[in-house]
Amino acid sequence: MIAKTPAPPYYAVIFTSVRTDGDNGYAQMSDKMFELAKNQSGFLGVESAREQIGITVSYWKDLESIQKWKGNLEHQVAQRKGKEVWYEQFTTRIAKVERDYSFENK
Amino acid sequence: MIAKTPAPPYYAVIFTSVRTDGDNGYAQMSDKMFELAKNQSGFLGVESAREQIGITVSYWKDLESIQKWKGNLEHQVAQRKGKEVWYEQFTTRIAKVERDYSFENK
Repeated sequence: MIAKTPAPPYYAVIFTSVRTDGDNGYAQMSDKMFELAKNQSGFLGVESAREQIGITVSYWKDLESIQKWKGNLEHQVAQRKGKEVWYEQFTTRIAKVERDYSFENK
Repeated sequence: MIAKTPAPPYYAVIFTSVRTDGDNGYAQMSDKMFELAKNQSGFLGVESAREQIGITVSYWKDLESIQKWKGNLEHQVAQRKGKEVWYEQFTTRIAKVERDYSFENK
Protein backbone atom coordinates (compact mmCIF):
# COMPACT_ATOMS: atom_id res chain seq x y z
CA MET A 1 0.00 0.00 0.00
CA ILE A 2 1.14 3.52 -0.77
CA ALA A 3 1.30 5.42 2.54
CA LYS A 4 -1.26 8.17 3.05
CA THR A 5 0.86 10.93 4.51
CA PRO A 6 -0.19 14.47 5.53
CA ALA A 7 0.93 17.62 3.72
CA PRO A 8 4.72 18.22 3.87
CA PRO A 9 6.97 18.90 5.62
CA TYR A 10 7.46 15.54 7.32
CA TYR A 11 10.35 13.08 7.50
CA ALA A 12 11.25 9.89 5.63
CA VAL A 13 13.63 7.18 6.82
CA ILE A 14 14.86 5.35 3.71
CA PHE A 15 16.28 1.96 4.72
CA THR A 16 17.89 0.02 1.87
CA SER A 17 19.29 -3.42 2.64
CA VAL A 18 20.80 -6.63 1.33
CA ARG A 19 19.79 -9.69 3.37
CA THR A 20 21.89 -12.66 4.37
CA ASP A 21 20.69 -16.14 3.30
CA GLY A 22 17.83 -17.83 5.17
CA ASP A 23 15.06 -16.38 7.30
CA ASN A 24 16.65 -16.85 10.75
CA GLY A 25 13.64 -15.36 12.51
CA TYR A 26 13.58 -12.26 10.32
CA ALA A 27 9.94 -12.46 9.13
CA GLN A 28 8.59 -12.74 12.65
CA MET A 29 10.70 -9.85 13.94
CA SER A 30 9.83 -7.76 10.90
CA ASP A 31 6.08 -8.17 11.57
CA LYS A 32 6.62 -7.36 15.23
CA MET A 33 8.60 -4.20 14.43
CA PHE A 34 5.91 -3.08 12.00
CA GLU A 35 3.23 -3.43 14.69
CA LEU A 36 5.43 -1.64 17.20
CA ALA A 37 6.33 1.22 14.84
CA LYS A 38 2.67 1.84 13.97
CA ASN A 39 1.99 2.63 17.62
CA GLN A 40 4.86 5.09 18.07
CA SER A 41 3.97 8.75 18.38
CA GLY A 42 4.71 10.62 15.17
CA PHE A 43 4.51 7.54 12.92
CA LEU A 44 2.80 8.46 9.63
CA GLY A 45 3.11 5.33 7.47
CA VAL A 46 5.46 2.82 5.86
CA GLU A 47 6.13 1.38 2.40
CA SER A 48 8.20 -1.72 1.69
CA ALA A 49 9.33 -3.91 -1.22
CA ARG A 50 12.13 -6.43 -1.72
CA GLU A 51 13.78 -7.96 -4.80
CA GLN A 52 17.61 -8.05 -5.03
CA ILE A 53 17.56 -5.29 -2.46
CA GLY A 54 14.92 -4.36 0.08
CA ILE A 55 13.66 -0.81 0.43
CA THR A 56 11.58 0.23 3.44
CA VAL A 57 10.55 3.86 3.72
CA SER A 58 8.90 4.89 6.98
CA TYR A 59 7.38 8.35 7.40
CA TRP A 60 7.48 10.39 10.59
CA LYS A 61 6.19 13.70 11.90
CA ASP A 62 9.60 15.03 12.94
CA LEU A 63 13.20 14.13 13.87
CA GLU A 64 12.24 13.69 17.51
CA SER A 65 9.83 10.86 16.64
CA ILE A 66 12.58 9.15 14.61
CA GLN A 67 15.05 9.48 17.50
CA LYS A 68 12.56 7.96 19.93
CA TRP A 69 11.82 5.04 17.60
CA LYS A 70 15.54 4.44 17.12
CA GLY A 71 15.96 4.33 20.89
CA ASN A 72 12.97 2.03 21.59
CA LEU A 73 14.30 -0.94 23.57
CA GLU A 74 12.64 -3.71 21.54
CA HIS A 75 13.70 -1.95 18.35
CA GLN A 76 17.29 -1.79 19.61
CA VAL A 77 17.29 -5.57 20.09
CA ALA A 78 16.10 -5.89 16.47
CA GLN A 79 18.75 -3.44 15.26
CA ARG A 80 21.46 -5.46 16.96
CA LYS A 81 20.20 -8.74 15.45
CA GLY A 82 20.02 -6.99 12.09
CA LYS A 83 23.76 -6.37 12.15
CA GLU A 84 24.63 -9.76 13.65
CA VAL A 85 22.35 -12.02 11.60
CA TRP A 86 19.96 -10.61 8.99
CA TYR A 87 21.78 -8.00 6.93
CA GLU A 88 24.79 -8.31 4.67
CA GLN A 89 24.71 -4.53 4.28
CA PHE A 90 22.36 -1.62 4.67
CA THR A 91 22.14 2.14 4.36
CA THR A 92 19.78 4.35 6.36
CA ARG A 93 18.99 7.85 5.12
CA ILE A 94 17.07 10.48 7.09
CA ALA A 95 15.36 12.92 4.74
CA LYS A 96 12.95 15.83 5.08
CA VAL A 97 10.07 15.56 2.61
CA GLU A 98 9.57 19.03 1.17
CA ARG A 99 7.01 18.28 -1.55
CA ASP A 100 4.82 15.41 -2.68
CA TYR A 101 2.13 14.71 -5.25
CA SER A 102 -0.09 11.76 -5.99
CA PHE A 103 -1.85 10.31 -9.01
CA GLU A 104 -4.76 7.88 -9.07
CA ASN A 105 -6.29 6.42 -12.20
CA LYS A 106 -10.08 6.52 -11.81
CA MET B 1 22.51 -2.53 -5.47
CA ILE B 2 22.56 -0.01 -2.64
CA ALA B 3 23.41 3.38 -4.13
CA LYS B 4 26.81 4.83 -3.22
CA THR B 5 25.93 8.44 -2.50
CA PRO B 6 28.23 11.28 -1.36
CA ALA B 7 28.05 12.88 2.10
CA PRO B 8 24.72 14.69 2.77
CA PRO B 9 23.05 16.99 2.04
CA TYR B 10 21.64 15.71 -1.26
CA TYR B 11 18.14 14.98 -2.51
CA ALA B 12 16.00 11.83 -2.82
CA VAL B 13 13.00 11.37 -5.10
CA ILE B 14 10.89 8.60 -3.55
CA PHE B 15 8.53 7.21 -6.20
CA THR B 16 6.04 4.64 -4.89
CA SER B 17 3.66 3.04 -7.37
CA VAL B 18 1.02 0.42 -8.03
CA ARG B 19 1.17 -0.98 -11.58
CA THR B 20 -1.70 -1.84 -13.92
CA ASP B 21 -1.87 -5.45 -15.26
CA GLY B 22 0.44 -6.52 -18.08
CA ASP B 23 3.77 -5.14 -19.25
CA ASN B 24 2.53 -2.89 -22.09
CA GLY B 25 6.05 -1.77 -22.97
CA TYR B 26 6.90 -0.83 -19.39
CA ALA B 27 10.09 -2.91 -18.95
CA GLN B 28 11.65 -1.49 -22.11
CA MET B 29 10.82 2.11 -21.18
CA SER B 30 12.00 1.55 -17.62
CA ASP B 31 15.42 0.37 -18.84
CA LYS B 32 15.62 3.32 -21.21
CA MET B 33 14.75 5.83 -18.48
CA PHE B 34 17.34 4.30 -16.18
CA GLU B 35 20.04 4.73 -18.84
CA LEU B 36 18.88 8.27 -19.53
CA ALA B 37 18.73 9.27 -15.84
CA LYS B 38 22.26 7.97 -15.23
CA ASN B 39 23.58 10.48 -17.72
CA GLN B 40 21.78 13.51 -16.31
CA SER B 41 23.89 16.08 -14.50
CA GLY B 42 23.46 15.82 -10.75
CA PHE B 43 22.35 12.15 -10.80
CA LEU B 44 23.87 10.30 -7.82
CA GLY B 45 22.27 6.84 -7.92
CA VAL B 46 19.06 4.85 -7.85
CA GLU B 47 17.55 1.97 -5.87
CA SER B 48 14.49 -0.01 -6.90
CA ALA B 49 12.35 -2.96 -5.74
CA ARG B 50 8.84 -4.15 -6.50
CA GLU B 51 6.41 -6.54 -4.76
CA GLN B 52 2.78 -5.45 -4.18
CA ILE B 53 4.07 -1.92 -4.60
CA GLY B 54 7.12 -0.62 -6.39
CA ILE B 55 9.55 1.75 -4.72
CA THR B 56 12.19 3.58 -6.74
CA VAL B 57 14.41 6.05 -4.94
CA SER B 58 16.66 8.19 -7.11
CA TYR B 59 19.30 10.45 -5.59
CA TRP B 60 20.26 13.88 -6.90
CA LYS B 61 22.74 16.63 -6.14
CA ASP B 62 20.11 19.36 -5.79
CA LEU B 63 16.57 20.47 -6.65
CA GLU B 64 17.71 21.99 -9.92
CA SER B 65 18.92 18.59 -11.19
CA ILE B 66 15.54 17.07 -10.26
CA GLN B 67 13.67 19.84 -12.09
CA LYS B 68 15.78 19.32 -15.21
CA TRP B 69 15.22 15.56 -15.17
CA LYS B 70 11.48 16.09 -14.71
CA GLY B 71 11.49 18.38 -17.74
CA ASN B 72 13.60 16.09 -19.99
CA LEU B 73 11.59 15.54 -23.18
CA GLU B 74 11.95 11.75 -23.39
CA HIS B 75 11.19 11.51 -19.68
CA GLN B 76 8.05 13.59 -20.20
CA VAL B 77 6.81 11.10 -22.79
CA ALA B 78 7.40 8.32 -20.25
CA GLN B 79 5.62 10.30 -17.51
CA ARG B 80 2.59 10.74 -19.76
CA LYS B 81 2.48 7.02 -20.63
CA GLY B 82 2.84 6.25 -16.94
CA LYS B 83 -0.43 8.01 -16.19
CA GLU B 84 -2.20 6.70 -19.28
CA VAL B 85 -1.07 3.07 -19.26
CA TRP B 86 1.33 1.76 -16.60
CA TYR B 87 0.27 3.07 -13.21
CA GLU B 88 -2.90 2.52 -11.24
CA GLN B 89 -1.60 5.01 -8.73
CA PHE B 90 1.63 6.58 -7.57
CA THR B 91 3.07 9.09 -5.13
CA THR B 92 6.25 11.09 -5.68
CA ARG B 93 8.02 12.65 -2.72
CA ILE B 94 10.94 15.09 -2.95
CA ALA B 95 13.09 14.92 0.16
CA LYS B 96 16.36 16.43 1.34
CA VAL B 97 18.68 13.81 2.81
CA GLU B 98 20.16 15.33 5.96
CA ARG B 99 21.95 12.30 7.41
CA ASP B 100 22.92 8.80 6.35
CA TYR B 101 24.87 5.86 7.68
CA SER B 102 25.88 2.51 6.26
CA PHE B 103 26.70 -0.93 7.60
CA GLU B 104 28.59 -3.71 5.88
CA ASN B 105 29.15 -7.17 7.34
CA LYS B 106 32.79 -8.14 6.66
